Parts: sequence; structure tokens; C-alpha cells
Amino acid sequence: MTAIDNIAQANTRYAATFPGPRSRHPRLKLTVITCMDSRLDLFGALGLEVGDAHLIRNAGGIPTDDVLRSLAISQRAMGTSEVVLAHHTECGMAGFDDDAFRAELEAESGQAPTWRVPGFDDVYDDLRRSVETVRTCPWLPNRDHVRGFLFDVATGVLHEVS
Amino acid sequence: MTAIDNIAQANTRYAATFPGPRSRHPRLKLTVITCMDSRLDLFGALGLEVGDAHLIRNAGGIPTDDVLRSLAISQRAMGTSEVVLAHHTECGMAGFDDDAFRAELEAESGQAPTWRVPGFDDVYDDLRRSVETVRTCPWLPNRDHVRGFLFDVATGVLHEVS
Repeated sequence: MTAIDNIAQANTRYAATFPGPRSRHPRLKLTVITCMDSRLDLFGALGLEVGDAHLIRNAGGIPTDDVLRSLAISQRAMGTSEVVLAHHTECGMAGFDDDAFRAELEAESGQAPTWRVPGFDDVYDDLRRSVETVRTCPWLPNRDHVRGFLFDVATGVLHEVS
Repeated sequence: MTAIDNIAQANTRYAATFPGPRSRHPRLKLTVITCMDSRLDLFGALGLEVGDAHLIRNAGGIPTDDVLRSLAISQRAMGTSEVVLAHHTECGMAGFDDDAFRAELEAESGQAPTWRVPGFDDVYDDLRRSVETVRTCPWLPNRDHVRGFLFDVATGVLHEVS
């Protein structure tokens, strides 16, 4: 049995308790942008129910072009108006050397990666910069409620930073 | 009270039940790529525990450059080896006209968006194409276990497609 076989089995139990259809327009009009990290259970950590919020996640919770694309669709096509950016303690993107990583991939594969996304030195500074990136993004109609939090992966506590 | 104030309060209750520290290396060595849609509670739907899997999410669950970047970091820096791609029924990216969306954003803001990510016509075809994109990505060391699923947002059931 692979891990994928196991989750497919777990889904059968889940479907028996599924609450049923909900609107594609998030009930809380909320979008959360955070890291792919395995210790972030956003439904649990934020008290979300099925249908409540859009969740956008990548390595680092960094507002890349693709994140801004998703957020623009979230706000303009599905009516969301508040944004949470959450970084977390012990993140792999803290101290990450993108140039070295890109060089390694190119050396191994013979092809340079198509992306260029640096890591960050200070998680607080980066969170403030990320909030500013969203607040100044020209393609978003709703930028009055954009807030930054840090999730502590040892305790499950979410602290507001900016 | 904004939606964000409410989730910050819910977090206080969550932290009291948090299981404590887990490794940043996902226990199941699994990465899940799916849509930001509000009806996908992946911990519930896949039976995941804190620390089990990396979760990458954007509008459509499309393997964009930023998703491949995150997946490359997941596999190379944190040892994951299996990949699930999950699309879902009633997705906003089905039938989405990216050219029209980009033109609308440019007309309003005076700046053309920095991304170019088309929607898809057929969710099954797109899922198969997405699986192929990951299976042929030159920067990923682990491409033997890449599987595509469709999540039914009316029932909570996950069907394997490819």
C-alpha cells in the first residue's frame, strides 16, 4: 500500500460525514495565503467549515505572481474581500538560497528552472513585505483588510504580526 | 468583528488541542496539489494528521511554474516522493477565459497582469495533462507515484482519474 492508497481509503470514511453542497463563493469572503508546510491544518487552526474560505498555498506562503493570479480570481470572480497571509516558525524558506537551488537543478537536468523566487532571511520582515505586496497589487479590488500572522508549529498558536 | 477577528478567536480553542511539534519532513512523504476552492478540507477529505503531507493550492490546482517550484523544494529539500493532483467538480477555472480576464485587469488598472494561465474546457483532460506535466518535469527526482483524482464537491468523494 502506498500513502496514496491509504488516503483514498480514508476518503471513503470522510464522504459519509460530508455536509453536502455549498456555494463556490466563500461564505466568510476570506482568502488565506500560507505555506505548503505539513503542520498547517487550516480548517482546524482557523476554525473553518466546508465552504468558508479560499486557501492558497505554496513553498513559503510567498505572494508570487501565481498567488496574485489566484487571489485576483478569488476577489473578482468569487467575491472575497479579506486576506490573511500566514507565515510559520521553522519554515524551509527561511535562509533558503534560491540561486544555489537553481544552479543545482540546472547542473543536474541541463535546464534552468523557469522560476526565480528567493527565500527570506527574517520571517517577520518577509511577512510585512508580503502584506505590502498584496496591499499594493493593482489587480485586486479589495485591499482594506489584509493582515499578516505567524503560525507557531510547536504550539498551534497564530500571532498577528502586521 | 471581521471574518479575520473570528478566525483569530477560533485559533485559541484549536491551540489547546494541538498535538505538538512534528518534523518538517512530511511523515507520509506525500505532496498534494489542488485548487484553492473553499469546499476542499484536505485534512478531513484525505484523513491527514498534522505533519503528514505538503499541500500546494492555487486557482484550479494547475501545475504552474510556482507549483513546480514548490514541488521541487518539497521533494529535494524535504524528502517527499508521492504526488496527488486533485481537481474538483464545479471549478471556477472550468471554462475560464484568461485572455478576457487579463484584458479586463489591464483596462481597469493600466497594467497588464504578470501571469498567463489559461483555464480548461474539460476537467478530466486537464487533470491528465496536469499529471503528465508533473511526470515529465525535469527538476523532480521522484515521478513514479503521480496520480490524478477528481473531488466531488457535492458528496466529498474523491475518484481516481489517472
